[in-house]
Parts: sequence; structure tokens; C-alpha cells
Amino acid sequence: MASPRPVRTNKTEDQITAEVVERFEGTPDPRLRRIMQSLVRHAHAFVKDVELTEAEWFQAIQFLTRTGQMCSDKRQEFILLSDTLGISMVVDLICHRKDDGITESTVFGPFHREGVAEVPMGSNIATEDPNGEPAVMSGRVLDPDGNPIQNALLDVWQADSAGLYDSQHTETENLRLRGIFRTGADGRYWFRTSRPVAYPIPDDGPVGDMLKASKRHPWRPAHVHFLVTAQGFEHVTTHVFESADKYLLSDTVFGVKDSLITDFVRRETPDELAAGMGITGPFYRANYDFFLQPARS
Amino acid sequence: MASPRPVRTNKTEDQITAEVVERFEGTPDPRLRRIMQSLVRHAHAFVKDVELTEAEWFQAIQFLTRTGQMCSDKRQEFILLSDTLGISMVVDLICHRKDDGITESTVFGPFHREGVAEVPMGSNIATEDPNGEPAVMSGRVLDPDGNPIQNALLDVWQADSAGLYDSQHTETENLRLRGIFRTGADGRYWFRTSRPVAYPIPDDGPVGDMLKASKRHPWRPAHVHFLVTAQGFEHVTTHVFESADKYLLSDTVFGVKDSLITDFVRRETPDELAAGMGITGPFYRANYDFFLQPARS
Repeated sequence: MASPRPVRTNKTEDQITAEVVERFEGTPDPRLRRIMQSLVRHAHAFVKDVELTEAEWFQAIQFLTRTGQMCSDKRQEFILLSDTLGISMVVDLICHRKDDGITESTVFGPFHREGVAEVPMGSNIATEDPNGEPAVMSGRVLDPDGNPIQNALLDVWQADSAGLYDSQHTETENLRLRGIFRTGADGRYWFRTSRPVAYPIPDDGPVGDMLKASKRHPWRPAHVHFLVTAQGFEHVTTHVFESADKYLLSDTVFGVKDSLITDFVRRETPDELAAGMGITGPFYRANYDFFLQPARS
Repeated sequence: MASPRPVRTNKTEDQITAEVVERFEGTPDPRLRRIMQSLVRHAHAFVKDVELTEAEWFQAIQFLTRTGQMCSDKRQEFILLSDTLGISMVVDLICHRKDDGITESTVFGPFHREGVAEVPMGSNIATEDPNGEPAVMSGRVLDPDGNPIQNALLDVWQADSAGLYDSQHTETENLRLRGIFRTGADGRYWFRTSRPVAYPIPDDGPVGDMLKASKRHPWRPAHVHFLVTAQGFEHVTTHVFESADKYLLSDTVFGVKDSLITDFVRRETPDELAAGMGITGPFYRANYDFFLQPARS
């Protein structure tokens, strides 16, 4: 009866890519058009490069579905996936090209929280971490010439001595080991916290399965998160890493940069600053200065 | 106090890609290693190509999260995403390179269901679609030389006259417009159904948002799904498309191939075959022969 009639040439792998790219040609927003067409080209190139089988494709569908369904108010598995594939760091490097000498950025991570209060300089953010080793962090927020920046805000967050952020503790909604500090005219900051420890990223989901299947460990080297903002300057989202950590060369999210590493020096007796923050015995002392990029038009 | 100490060179966008690829070097399964390393290279190349901003990256994270959370027993939004980006068709083209003359495959789609019963040849699969226009499909299952294949199974499914698959009807769990037919010695098949209609893919989720933002329509041209299997032959997952459909050149999932198009011819009075299946008035008649690829070792 009916025989097939030519509507177009039968498609090859290359023809199909060209057709999909062309289908996005009518996207009104030129930026979205460019992103979607590039995404199609690169996604198709990946599938062709490895000659993905149907079974592997379906595994990928299931992996992505599980990743989405693992996400909640307190868990962002797609950010973990982006982080562990180094994608977050590529975005970071592209978006934060800084002049020499400016403090470098690193991954934001999934653990920042809104609603943290500004607290007086010198506060102890680790009052709810009784097992933490006391630490004092201090330094300055400076412009590229080394002049202090007044009214800079340092939004600080870190994991506790068990290697967990407050949002990972299911028994409490409390904000812990977080604080926002405002610099005075001298640009200085100082506060008491717990000595940061290395910790594994949550590895009971699809991202953990990927790490296990590739014999990668889930550990991040010890660090304290900083988001430093000041009027007239570009903000910097970064970490300060402890120099003694054994995972500095194998951070599972690729976040370490040389310039972000500093010593946490053990001291047996409190100095005046530490004593003023209630430290009575041995503690760790770290210093780090932030250099901010003046805002560019 | 402490000054940064060199652990490695500061990373550039290219160094980070090399480092992530290297981190997958220890993957025990060589196939998984190859897939992950290629995925990293292509994903990073995409991000660098478009110079993805942090805000765009976060939009992508949210889009993927919503896509995962839209998935359920009855909805697979990641398959829709793969289909509408043409990725499913690339996988199909790679995995089903057939000899000339063999029936071509196309996308599996998200609407196949397990648990469908084998029914007698000539059954009406559209008994629960009273508004459908009656149609008779018939043809043969053949080897490359045109010899009939006995005991071939044709797993058939299609949307109803409202353009919806049974699983999209929330009021019922019934299997509708589905059936499995087994060929006899002559390799012939025939059954009654509704004339297929064009329909939009579900577009109330993230994939629909993507289509709207790129001014793409969500329509698929009218088709009937076939999964044809036979001992000693490669199975074929395919559609038969109606030649009169206006969406043949713009199928939103890129599934159309010339060789899969056939006429649904209107007839005013039932012939003997149609009358035997209870058709009393005008109906549509389509014929399509499947040629299966002998199993390759």
C-alpha cells in the first residue's frame, strides 16, 4: 500500500546535531540561544565520543533523577555533583578573574545560610561546639594598596569539630559556627571559633556512589568559609585552608588554591587577644588578610 | 604571621580540567573511567565556551533539581529533556546502526508500560477510546530477504484520540491502547486501533519552560509505537508516523525518519478485514512492514 515518501534525508548523528542546534535558532534571548546551542553541541559530542549505549543512557537518566530527588531544603545534591566534577571551580575561575594580589575565590558550597546575625568583633561563634579545639582567627580587609577597608562585612561559616555543618544536624535548626563581622576604621577582624577539621562531603547519595565507583575519597581539607563584601569593592567568596591538612592536594571538590592556605599555629598559653575571648588553655592561631578588588564598571 | 606556601601552581581553567580528569584515573572499570573523563572534558568545554556566569550556573542547578523532582512513576522529565535536546536520538543512531533495508529505530519515549497482555491477532486495542476514528494497521514482520518471521512479538502502544497516553489519565490505572501481538507462519500482523493524532509532550514542567523560552512548540506528529522482537533477530524500537501530519518536519523530540512514515488512507466503507474487527463506517487503513536485522554475534 503506502510506501515511505521522502520528507528529508535520513538523519545521521551529525545531521541530528545540526537540526537540534537549528531548532534553537528562534530563541528570543540571544544569551539563552548561545547557551542552549553550545550545550547541544557539547552534549552530543560527549555521547558520540564515548558511543554511549542505551543501557548507559538509562543509567544516566536514573542517576540524574535520583540526584534531583535527593535535593531538599538542607541538601543540594546537584551542587555536590557540580563541585565533584570540578564544574563549580571552572565557573569560579571564569567569573572571578582578579588582578594579581587580590584574594582569590573558591567554591561557594551548599552550606551557606541566610539569616545569620551580625555579631560584635571578637565574638565566639563556636559556643555550641564544646568538643572543638579553640582557635582564634584574625586579619585585615584591605584594598590593593594595603589600605584598610572600613565597614567590610565578613560572613563566616564552617563545620564543627565533628565535621558537620549545623544544617546537617537533624536534631536542631540552630545556626551554629556562623557569624557576620563588620570591620572598623583599621580594617581588622578577629573572632574565636573551633579549629577547622577535614570532613567528608555527604556521600550517602548518587554523588557518593560516583565517588566510590571511581575510587575517589569524599574528603575536603579543613577550612573556614568567608564571604567578604564592602561598598565599592567586588565581593569575594572563598575559604581559608589549614596548611597542615593532608587533603590539600586531593580536595574532592578541587577548591584549594595556594594563596588561600594559612597556618593554624598551636600555642600552649593564651595571649591577650585569646584571653579576652575566654580561652584559658592551648589554642590555635591563624591570620589571614583579604585584599578586595575595587568595583569595575 | 603565616604566609601562603606553595602546594601547587595556582589553577587556571585548563589546569583544573586536567586535574579533574586525572582524579578519575583510578576508576577500576575502564568503561566508566572513559565515560567520566569524557564527560568532564565536554562539560568543562561547554562552561568555558559560553563563559557561564554564577547566576546562570545556579539557574542550571535549579532547573536540574526541578527536573528530578518532577519525575514520578508516571512521568520521566529527564527522558523528556534528553528527547527534546536530541540526545536520545543521537544514542539511538549510535546504538542501532542497521544494514540498508532494515527497519530503522527511533526514540523509546517515556510512555511504554510493562504488564501488557498478549492478545489475539486482530484485536481492537482502542475499546476504551470511544472518540477515536477507527483505524486498521497491518503488515508483516520479515527478514532482510523478505521471508516471514514466525513468532515475532509486536508490542504496540499509542496515545488516544485526546492525545494522551493511558498513564497521563489520572482517573484510571487501566492499560489502554496497548497490546502485544504474535505473528504466525506468514509473519503477518493486523489489529484495530484509533487513528493516531499529534499531541504535545507534557509541557507543564521544566522541559516545557525550556521549550517556551526558545519558542519551540511541544508537538509530536501522529504515530504508533512498536517494539518488535523475534528470536534470532535484533529487536527494533520504533514508531510508524502518519504521512499527513503537519509536525513531521518539526517533531519536538526529533524522532522522524523518512522510512518510518506511512499513509493512513481514509476509506468510506469497511473491507472484509475491517468488518471482521467490528468497523461499520469510515475508517483509516495503514500498512507497514518491519524488516528485522539478524542477530550479530
